[in-house]
Amino acid sequence: MPNNTIKLKHGAGGAPMSDLISGIRHSLEFTGDWKGTLDDGAYLKAGNKYLVFTTDSYIQSPYFFPGGNIGKLAVTGTVNDLAVMGAEPIALTLSIIIEEGFKKEHLDTIIDSVNTLSKKLKVPIVTGDTKVMPKGQLDGIIINTAGIGTTKDIIRNENIAPKDKVIITGTIGDHGGAILATRFDYKTDLISDCRPVLDIMRLLNGKIKSAKDPTRGGIASCLNELADKAKVKITIDEETIPIRKETRAICNILGINPLTLACEGRALLIVSEDDEIEVLELLKKELCPDAITIGTVSPGKKVILKTKISEIFLDNPGGTGVPRIC
Amino acid sequence: MPNNTIKLKHGAGGAPMSDLISGIRHSLEFTGDWKGTLDDGAYLKAGNKYLVFTTDSYIQSPYFFPGGNIGKLAVTGTVNDLAVMGAEPIALTLSIIIEEGFKKEHLDTIIDSVNTLSKKLKVPIVTGDTKVMPKGQLDGIIINTAGIGTTKDIIRNENIAPKDKVIITGTIGDHGGAILATRFDYKTDLISDCRPVLDIMRLLNGKIKSAKDPTRGGIASCLNELADKAKVKITIDEETIPIRKETRAICNILGINPLTLACEGRALLIVSEDDEIEVLELLKKELCPDAITIGTVSPGKKVILKTKISEIFLDNPGGTGVPRIC
Repeated sequence: MPNNTIKLKHGAGGAPMSDLISGIRHSLEFTGDWKGTLDDGAYLKAGNKYLVFTTDSYIQSPYFFPGGNIGKLAVTGTVNDLAVMGAEPIALTLSIIIEEGFKKEHLDTIIDSVNTLSKKLKVPIVTGDTKVMPKGQLDGIIINTAGIGTTKDIIRNENIAPKDKVIITGTIGDHGGAILATRFDYKTDLISDCRPVLDIMRLLNGKIKSAKDPTRGGIASCLNELADKAKVKITIDEETIPIRKETRAICNILGINPLTLACEGRALLIVSEDDEIEVLELLKKELCPDAITIGTVSPGKKVILKTKISEIFLDNPGGTGVPRIC
Repeated sequence: MPNNTIKLKHGAGGAPMSDLISGIRHSLEFTGDWKGTLDDGAYLKAGNKYLVFTTDSYIQSPYFFPGGNIGKLAVTGTVNDLAVMGAEPIALTLSIIIEEGFKKEHLDTIIDSVNTLSKKLKVPIVTGDTKVMPKGQLDGIIINTAGIGTTKDIIRNENIAPKDKVIITGTIGDHGGAILATRFDYKTDLISDCRPVLDIMRLLNGKIKSAKDPTRGGIASCLNELADKAKVKITIDEETIPIRKETRAICNILGINPLTLACEGRALLIVSEDDEIEVLELLKKELCPDAITIGTVSPGKKVILKTKISEIFLDNPGGTGVPRIC
């Protein structure tokens, strides 16, 4: 592939994507009164509240997977982008692009999932768009959702200080693992963790300093983004990171670092040292039995992974990662 | 193509697409306090204003065309969807999906166009998403934009009554014609009409009863949508419809009805009989020298095309139309 073309790694959620996106962002000079344009969503002060605006495209293949489908994923992902900023979603859009010849029955199932989740969350899909591309010009289906939400207090990525604690709400990489298992036809019990984290953010309202949903590029990418933005060092203790045996096995076979594998229903939370115990107890009791502290913030920069015998830099993933995983 | 699959006609902006979309809409039962969910955008009462929310995906091929590119189109289209509802856009999102191997230089040109138009209109692109699909799984580039706007007065599709007049702000089908000429390598001087109609809507503020931007499916599709929603008959006088000779020639060669061909910078306006002259004069003087009244509303239903010697039904286009034209 020639040098002056877009590569798969540009879509993988790590350093090359950051470069491409920040290139695009820098070309887009005019942001008006909006802030947070490099976070999960942008926000605008409107009266005594903030309006939050976000979008994501979902290109996942296969579009059906253990634990959901691309429709559930598209609602979940955009709701989660609003939720980790502390916002209550008030509406979503739904744009679908379908390959000619796509099975109507599959589309119905996908729309059913969108509908079920929209009703359950009481977040309406208010408008949308449908396009069809000729056979061979698109593989399957693409969904884009945009979402708006409101909040009195924005949770910003950079609101992190030394001594803060890093909590993950459950096992990492279940989504990525389940997709890979489906794609390579491995027999596993892995189920995608795809779920809205809105209830988690509501439960912990006021106690979260910073939050991310570690999708593309996994927790490795999110931690690097947080350390960069907040200008701090984050040290993660490998032994504490919850991961399923089967996810680890798939990663071993395929040579993928599970720390770069997508979650679609976990929240990576930064809390102050003082709130750590209370937050963990609440999480474990109410919603996330596997929630655990995996790291600590200190002065400095970069992300450090403490393994059994050493401390290494956990870099922003730079390779191609896993294409079309979310 | 088996019966139970999605066909190209489902994306062409006419009757089959209406069926598919209203099928999807009906499956999406929960719209909360939002209204207008079948118009160009949905709206929600927020204080003394309305918040308007819209989205569109742009799959156009070729992505460069005389008069613009897919980036300009993506900003224009979403701004226009807000504008025809009477809203002032306050922010857009920009989601790009690129095929692996896409030329970086082409992406830069597309982003430049987005940026130039965003700055000119003072409508910021506040957030976005970038995905890359493996070579062969997507042809070129897809862009999705979502937009939010505000207005004190919503312009609704169904606000049409007998005796109202139908005005078009310029020649029809220039966009579709230019795309077809490029695609089939015809030598013409056709240039896409791709432009925001925000200035037109601002100029006529308070004088427009109903408005559409006739993109997919052209004015044939829009007129049928308006007649349906407002439960009126709309009669169009063929002789008055402004169309370029070259657009007509291309349509003749390819067997396409120019009334179904996409415009990307025209507004189809419904005004009261009393305002017709003033609106036309304003339009011609300020922004649209070719603006002209092309039809009249009366009691009844359907769209009637008055030709030189007869009156025929102008149906909602039902065929495949022109794929990937916007």
